[in-house]
Amino acid sequence: MRVSELVAVSGVPLATVKYYLREGLLMPGEASSATQAEYGEQHVRRLSLIKALAGVGLPLAKIRIIVGLVDHPADTVFETIGGALAALPPYSADADAEADDYPRARAVLERLGQVYRPAYPVVAQLEKALAAAEDVGIPMTDERLDVYARHIRSIAEVDLQLMPTDSVASAIEYAVLGTAIYEPVLTALRRLAHQDVGATMFARRTFDGFATSDRQENP
Amino acid sequence: MRVSELVAVSGVPLATVKYYLREGLLMPGEASSATQAEYGEQHVRRLSLIKALAGVGLPLAKIRIIVGLVDHPADTVFETIGGALAALPPYSADADAEADDYPRARAVLERLGQVYRPAYPVVAQLEKALAAAEDVGIPMTDERLDVYARHIRSIAEVDLQLMPTDSVASAIEYAVLGTAIYEPVLTALRRLAHQDVGATMFARRTFDGFATSDRQENP
Repeated sequence: MRVSELVAVSGVPLATVKYYLREGLLMPGEASSATQAEYGEQHVRRLSLIKALAGVGLPLAKIRIIVGLVDHPADTVFETIGGALAALPPYSADADAEADDYPRARAVLERLGQVYRPAYPVVAQLEKALAAAEDVGIPMTDERLDVYARHIRSIAEVDLQLMPTDSVASAIEYAVLGTAIYEPVLTALRRLAHQDVGATMFARRTFDGFATSDRQENP
Repeated sequence: MRVSELVAVSGVPLATVKYYLREGLLMPGEASSATQAEYGEQHVRRLSLIKALAGVGLPLAKIRIIVGLVDHPADTVFETIGGALAALPPYSADADAEADDYPRARAVLERLGQVYRPAYPVVAQLEKALAAAEDVGIPMTDERLDVYARHIRSIAEVDLQLMPTDSVASAIEYAVLGTAIYEPVLTALRRLAHQDVGATMFARRTFDGFATSDRQENP
């Protein structure tokens, strides 16, 4: 197909397609004349990947890393997908991002028997989230951690079992997009489960069982 | 304590304390003279709640709803906490937020046997997240949903079991802050579980088992 058709099929504007070509994010088409090139399915697919990654908030520099791994995978699946996942947001702008130890995350990972590598961006993210929980007076306890970790692991296992293996590109796309895209699904499901479980536990329950000192003090 | 001590203890600046008093978010102190008032533990606690809610991104109008429920709970625990949770972000600015049906969320909730109420903000959030997954070519399947929902429900159950019942204020604070604050912990744990499970599944695995057409096409 010509570039005009690529624009129509992908829904990406011509100026953007040209920009991705110049930046090397989109592989060149096959030259069919001095001024024209032919594009194919791989171009449509690449544009849809870039669009999806931009849609979950990745800046171009991070999209470049992922696209680079699709085109030139590392030696193992694990390294390749690990590298791609490390390019995902959130990006910490904190000074803490430069820290060389994350004590709360370390304690959690040691308890779970998982590798603790402070260089993983997600370790800094975990540290920050655990510190926030501590700040508001609901620190992570072993009791909570054990339940959370067990169930989250089962979810992660099914995530990886469902990973397509028809191509390197499919596997990386699935890993990156599945990780980012399903986080809001999981948080929404948890809130809805709170409502559903709460409806059973508290349907007709009044605050009679609760200490009411606060209410009396603040009429 | 005097207002200057309240400022010191809470870490909230005087101008902000006065603003919260004027807005009715902070209950008045007990007048000790024509120009002075005494403040107590409940004021410190209220300021810390407001600070924590602002810290997870709630605008003042939403904080007002939650504080209002602490002071004047609804008839049942469920209604009170449900009302408080509905004040949490994310807030959708989409036109869809006004939709009266969310077909993807409805299908998911029907399959799970949970109540579908389009008026719950989190239902719109679920619909949006499911649509995004569809857009990037990883739509929610029954297989994935059943695993996700079962494990998320177990997490939600422990969340509610750990809820303090010493006071109405504690219960609401826990529900609201625990919901918002633990979401990033869970998403970080899932990403770390992906790495850990992946290391076992893929440690030495190369892409030999994968179709390599993409790699040959894009040297």
